[in-house]
Amino acid sequence: MENTLLVVNCGSSSLKIALFDKDRQKIASMLAGRLNTPNARFRIGKQRDATKLPPNTTHKEALAVLMDTAQKKGLMPKQPAAIGHRIVHGGETFREAVLINDEVLAAIQACNLLAPLHNPVNVEGIMATRELFPLVPQVAVFDTAFHQTLPEHAFHYALPQNYYRDWGVRRYGFHGTSHAYMLQQAALRLEQSTAVTSIISAHLGNGCSITAIRDGKSVDTSMGLTPLEGLVMGTRSGDVDPGLFDYLQSKGVSAEQLHNELNHSSGLLGLSGQTNDMRTLSDLADQGDPSAQLAIDVFCFRLAKYVAAMMVSLNRLDALVFTGGIGQNSARVRQQTVNQLGLLGFAIDQHNNDDNGLNRGGRIDCKESRFPILVIATDEERVIAGEAARLAELN
Amino acid sequence: MENTLLVVNCGSSSLKIALFDKDRQKIASMLAGRLNTPNARFRIGKQRDATKLPPNTTHKEALAVLMDTAQKKGLMPKQPAAIGHRIVHGGETFREAVLINDEVLAAIQACNLLAPLHNPVNVEGIMATRELFPLVPQVAVFDTAFHQTLPEHAFHYALPQNYYRDWGVRRYGFHGTSHAYMLQQAALRLEQSTAVTSIISAHLGNGCSITAIRDGKSVDTSMGLTPLEGLVMGTRSGDVDPGLFDYLQSKGVSAEQLHNELNHSSGLLGLSGQTNDMRTLSDLADQGDPSAQLAIDVFCFRLAKYVAAMMVSLNRLDALVFTGGIGQNSARVRQQTVNQLGLLGFAIDQHNNDDNGLNRGGRIDCKESRFPILVIATDEERVIAGEAARLAELN
Repeated sequence: MENTLLVVNCGSSSLKIALFDKDRQKIASMLAGRLNTPNARFRIGKQRDATKLPPNTTHKEALAVLMDTAQKKGLMPKQPAAIGHRIVHGGETFREAVLINDEVLAAIQACNLLAPLHNPVNVEGIMATRELFPLVPQVAVFDTAFHQTLPEHAFHYALPQNYYRDWGVRRYGFHGTSHAYMLQQAALRLEQSTAVTSIISAHLGNGCSITAIRDGKSVDTSMGLTPLEGLVMGTRSGDVDPGLFDYLQSKGVSAEQLHNELNHSSGLLGLSGQTNDMRTLSDLADQGDPSAQLAIDVFCFRLAKYVAAMMVSLNRLDALVFTGGIGQNSARVRQQTVNQLGLLGFAIDQHNNDDNGLNRGGRIDCKESRFPILVIATDEERVIAGEAARLAELN
Repeated sequence: MENTLLVVNCGSSSLKIALFDKDRQKIASMLAGRLNTPNARFRIGKQRDATKLPPNTTHKEALAVLMDTAQKKGLMPKQPAAIGHRIVHGGETFREAVLINDEVLAAIQACNLLAPLHNPVNVEGIMATRELFPLVPQVAVFDTAFHQTLPEHAFHYALPQNYYRDWGVRRYGFHGTSHAYMLQQAALRLEQSTAVTSIISAHLGNGCSITAIRDGKSVDTSMGLTPLEGLVMGTRSGDVDPGLFDYLQSKGVSAEQLHNELNHSSGLLGLSGQTNDMRTLSDLADQGDPSAQLAIDVFCFRLAKYVAAMMVSLNRLDALVFTGGIGQNSARVRQQTVNQLGLLGFAIDQHNNDDNGLNRGGRIDCKESRFPILVIATDEERVIAGEAARLAELN
């Protein structure tokens, strides 16, 4: 159990932890949810039944319970060798993962205003692990860091200059950990260095984003100031007309209601009126449900448009990569998306696509395709564990 | 002067009219501005000095003055043979231009809520010409009509179903008259029928939009519910993160202020901090002004991304077409945009581009280009005059 790595991911009302051994194999994962509510609870791994926590358990209290449970079950030693924290927003300060000290912590807190729902709880997580394990090196891994290489023409909105100057309004991009991992994994499969690898990485989970990576650097991405922009997602709208806000206010819809609905009642859920689960939508579409079909159609159409748009930032494309829950598992979404990219030279091999490229190292393009197409499993926690080990100099 | 056609275009505080002879040649144009203000005025053609109108002159009063002036100058007969009105929003009711009767007028008024700044004044224009010329056939030509062929996956936003059902929230698209004219003109140059012609039409004026036309029908377009979405424009932002509204409200910016700034202080003007005029920006960029250069860079980058995205809706591309003030005159914008489309197979001929394709029937692509690229002058007023003549059966 020596050199166990702890990965901490604090959401607004949840705490997710994962334990990795020194070979970066996952030992366990645990999830505490509904924190700060009367129904706080946690579960270990894929356990069906949750264990109740005392009402209004905080992130800090939940962490203590999870650590205690893990130790009692023999899943971890008295303390981990290093701790990696997923931090949503690193602003323009953090271009890569860093060892956390007081100065770093203050700089993370300075980014709180850019992600008021996420960064403050991320900071709480750091505080809690520091108190529990004061001597263990802690590392911050940022969702935004990988995209700090975006060129100016890609990160600026066409807004008055003071928006950026005074309020930091710009495209930051998210899912950076996953996109960076796709770069690494694609380069491995293509047998070339990441520094000369150019890919388009489509991360399609409950949140969805797509990134153009040119010679190992992020040069364009679909999420922007916040994780609401870009692709259609499970419950998020992605792009809408900015005139929507004024229009709906004239209809008596408050800005707050609209913001909530764009985040929680839109996307696949909004279009289908039923679910944000792509598997369920596929089944419904097979049964002839027109709303489910429309949800899939809009999702794939908008994704295909973004794949095309990302090509503008590249002068060579080594691979289009699909990842995330939908990207890895929905042959339908990949097929329907790539079918719309025919004029751009993409073509899919139906047989290999149907089994997620399993027997061909993830390759699902056919020989007519101008560009390789890959399916690669993402694993953000593992990347965070790796960064923690690297910066704690455990390797 | 028989069969003179009158084209009327009412803006929120302006009235633009144009007169065409029976061969669709323009005879005159006149513009009244600052209507309903103490400084109402008008000018004829490209006159430098405006003539004062009485304070708070209305659209209707201005029309009477312009008509009287035109008649006194011998530019038009007692009454025109037909009148064409530019109407901004035809909702889902109007798929093409129509002869105006009471029923049509009511249907146009029913679209007022979709374009509260534009449709009501368009209706005022119709009322005024009806009163002045009660026996003359009047025709409504809609900015949205050409886009009513958009397929469902292209016109639906990923929003809750009731947004479309209850409030008509969908992509409508604008500049339809110009895009339809580009289709017609491109087909002429390509010597093929519009019904088998597929183009991408980029209308770049002070407002900018781009449309994918497949076999003669609009199948995707960048403007949406309102003319604020899509490309970077003179003073409009085009696409922004929908999370911007919530974020800026937390900074004390009201929704109203943001909406005004997105419409009037953004785009090229916002990025450069100086002007929305592309010629001035080009001069400034040549002198090394970094903000002017950034404005041009963002404009061209976002345009190139949209050209790429529009290809998703096509399985053949007969031509990429540039039109509008910037599209027709800025060799720099065309060059910089097409240069970013190399991976997609577009290539420009610098020499032909520099003179706007003048000596090659508008063609500016080079022989390495997979797709023809054309520069075509738009003329929305002439199309409206033609529609008026056609529906009034003057031909």
